[in-house]
Amino acid sequence: MNFDLESIAREIQNFEGVTRKNPIGPLLEGFNTGMTNSIDIEATFGEDAAVLSHGDDLLLIAADGIWERLMNADPEWAGYCAVLVNIHDIAAMGGKPLGMVDVFSFRSKTSCTLVIKGMNDAIARFGVPIIGGHVHPDAPFNMLDIAILGVAKKGCAILSSTAKADDVIIMACDLEGRVHPSSNLNWDSTTMRDGEILKKQIEAMRVLGEAHLVHAGKDISNPGVLGTIGMMIEVSRKGATVDIGAIPKPAEIEMTHWLKMYPGMGFVVTADEDHASEVIEVFNNHHLTAATIGRVREGSIFSITDGDRSVKLFDFSEDRITGIKG
Amino acid sequence: MNFDLESIAREIQNFEGVTRKNPIGPLLEGFNTGMTNSIDIEATFGEDAAVLSHGDDLLLIAADGIWERLMNADPEWAGYCAVLVNIHDIAAMGGKPLGMVDVFSFRSKTSCTLVIKGMNDAIARFGVPIIGGHVHPDAPFNMLDIAILGVAKKGCAILSSTAKADDVIIMACDLEGRVHPSSNLNWDSTTMRDGEILKKQIEAMRVLGEAHLVHAGKDISNPGVLGTIGMMIEVSRKGATVDIGAIPKPAEIEMTHWLKMYPGMGFVVTADEDHASEVIEVFNNHHLTAATIGRVREGSIFSITDGDRSVKLFDFSEDRITGIKG
Repeated sequence: MNFDLESIAREIQNFEGVTRKNPIGPLLEGFNTGMTNSIDIEATFGEDAAVLSHGDDLLLIAADGIWERLMNADPEWAGYCAVLVNIHDIAAMGGKPLGMVDVFSFRSKTSCTLVIKGMNDAIARFGVPIIGGHVHPDAPFNMLDIAILGVAKKGCAILSSTAKADDVIIMACDLEGRVHPSSNLNWDSTTMRDGEILKKQIEAMRVLGEAHLVHAGKDISNPGVLGTIGMMIEVSRKGATVDIGAIPKPAEIEMTHWLKMYPGMGFVVTADEDHASEVIEVFNNHHLTAATIGRVREGSIFSITDGDRSVKLFDFSEDRITGIKG
Repeated sequence: MNFDLESIAREIQNFEGVTRKNPIGPLLEGFNTGMTNSIDIEATFGEDAAVLSHGDDLLLIAADGIWERLMNADPEWAGYCAVLVNIHDIAAMGGKPLGMVDVFSFRSKTSCTLVIKGMNDAIARFGVPIIGGHVHPDAPFNMLDIAILGVAKKGCAILSSTAKADDVIIMACDLEGRVHPSSNLNWDSTTMRDGEILKKQIEAMRVLGEAHLVHAGKDISNPGVLGTIGMMIEVSRKGATVDIGAIPKPAEIEMTHWLKMYPGMGFVVTADEDHASEVIEVFNNHHLTAATIGRVREGSIFSITDGDRSVKLFDFSEDRITGIKG
C-alpha cells in the first residue's frame, strides 16, 4: 500500500499527544529519586505503573489524570476515561487492578454529577472499585486525578524499558467501535461492550506476562500507536521500524487520523519472533485483533516504512518523546 | 482555665477547614461503591487510607491534594505539604508508607521548580520516594495530587470508624515548631527537625496498632484537632466531650487559633482508659507530646467543656462534617 510517509512522520512529530510528553524527562531530572526507603523498586518513571517487590508479590501503583480539555468538553466521558486509563496502566504491566482512589476538584455541581456518572459506568463495566479519595469542593476548576493499586506475580511484570533488538513489535486492539462524539481522537471500543468481554481484554497482558511470551509492552495511550511505541523504544534505548501498512485499523478511519487516536483498548508488545504467533493467538483469544507491525533495532532510529521506502520518525540520539531512558 | 466555649464552638462550626468537608458525604452517595472485584476491602471512604486485605498483608492506598490557595501562596511549601499529608494518611492507619505517585499539572515553570524543590525536601526527610506519576505540562492551573501506597500487618490497621463509647480521646503532637510564614493555619514542626526524629514520630501509630493499644485514630489535618475528632466520632456513630483546657498547645499560640491549625505532626486516638498511660508513653517515646483530652460517648453529641460548663459543638443527628457514617 502507498502511504505518504513524510507527511505521516511530520504529523506524528508535531502531534500534541506526543509533544506534550516532552517536558517529562527534564522535569524528572529535578526529582530526588535516589531515596529508596529500603523498598525494592522494580519499575519507576517511564513505566505505565511503578512496581515494588513485596514478599511473594509485586505491588503496582499508577496515577493518571484527564486532559483538562476533555474534562470541559464532556465531563461524563472524562470521568469514564479517567477510570479506563488507570485500569489500562495496571493491565499493561501484566497486573491485576484491585482498587482506585481519586482526588476530585470541582467548581461546578453539574460537572461533578456527570463526572461521577461516567466513573460509575466504567467502574461497573470493569469491576474495579473506587475505594477512597479526597475532594476539593471549592476549586476554581474541574479536575479528576485517579491512582490505582494492582498486583502481579513476581517475575511476571511487563515493562516498557526492556524491548530487545530484533524483537518483533505486535499491536493489539479492538477494531469494533466508534469515534467518540466528544473527541475526534478517542476511538471508543468499550462503552458498547459487555463487561465480561472487557474484563477478558484487560487480562490479555497478564496472560502474556505470566507465560513470559513478551519482552516489553505498553498500553496505547494519548500519543497514539506510533507515539506509544516511540516511548517504549526510547526508554529501552533502542531503535525500531514500523510498517504502516501492517497496522490494524478500523476500515472507516483514515490512517493518519488512526495513528493519533487513543484506542479504548490497545496494547503494543515486543517479543521474540518465535513467539509472535503465540502472542497474537493470546490476544485473539482475548477478543483483540493483533498483528506484527515492525521490529526493534539496535541504535536510536525509529523509522516508518511502507515496505519499499523508509522515513525517519525520531532519532533518540537527538530527539526525545519523554527523554526518559531506562 | 476559662475559655469562651460559645465563641470557640462558633469559630469551629464555621471554620472553612471543617465546612469544606461537608460536600463529601452527599458526593459519595452518587458513587457506585458496591463493586468489589472480589477484593477484600477492610476500610474505604471516611478513613485516612483505604485498606485491602491481601494474603498475609494489608495494602493501604490514599490520595491527597493540596488546597489550591496554598499552591498559589507558596508552591515550595505546597509541594512539601503534599508529600507530608500523604505520609500522614498511611502513618495514621498504623501503616508503613512505601512509595508515592503524583499527578502534576502546571502552567508556570517557576511554580513547577518550586513545587519539586518542596517535594524533594519532604522526600529526603521522611525517606519515602516518588516512584511514578503523570504530568500535565499544559494545564491552565498549578495542581499537585499525590497518591501513596503503604502496608500494615493484618489485624493492626487503625481505623477512624471504630471509636468505642467510654474510650478516652488522646491527642499527640509536636509542640516545637513555628507558624509557617506562608500560612497562618500551618503549624510547621517538621522542617527544622532531623529526619531520624521525623521517621520515629511517623512510626508511633504503627507501634500502637501492632500493640492493639487503641480503638480508633486519625491524623490531625486541615479541620484542626476538634474537626478531626469530629470526623472520627461522626464516622464511628458516637458522641464525645473534649476538655479544651487539656489540649496540648504551643505556649505562644492562642487557643482558638491553635484549634484551627494543621500541625505538622499530630494524631488523635481513642483507647480503653486502662491503656491511656501506655498510649501516652508510646507517643512520648516517639518524640510527641500527648495527653488525654476527652472521652467518647454514646449518642451523637460532640461537646466541648472547660471542666465546669459544656457547650455543644455538633450533634451528628442533625449536623454533619463529612456525613460519612461507618
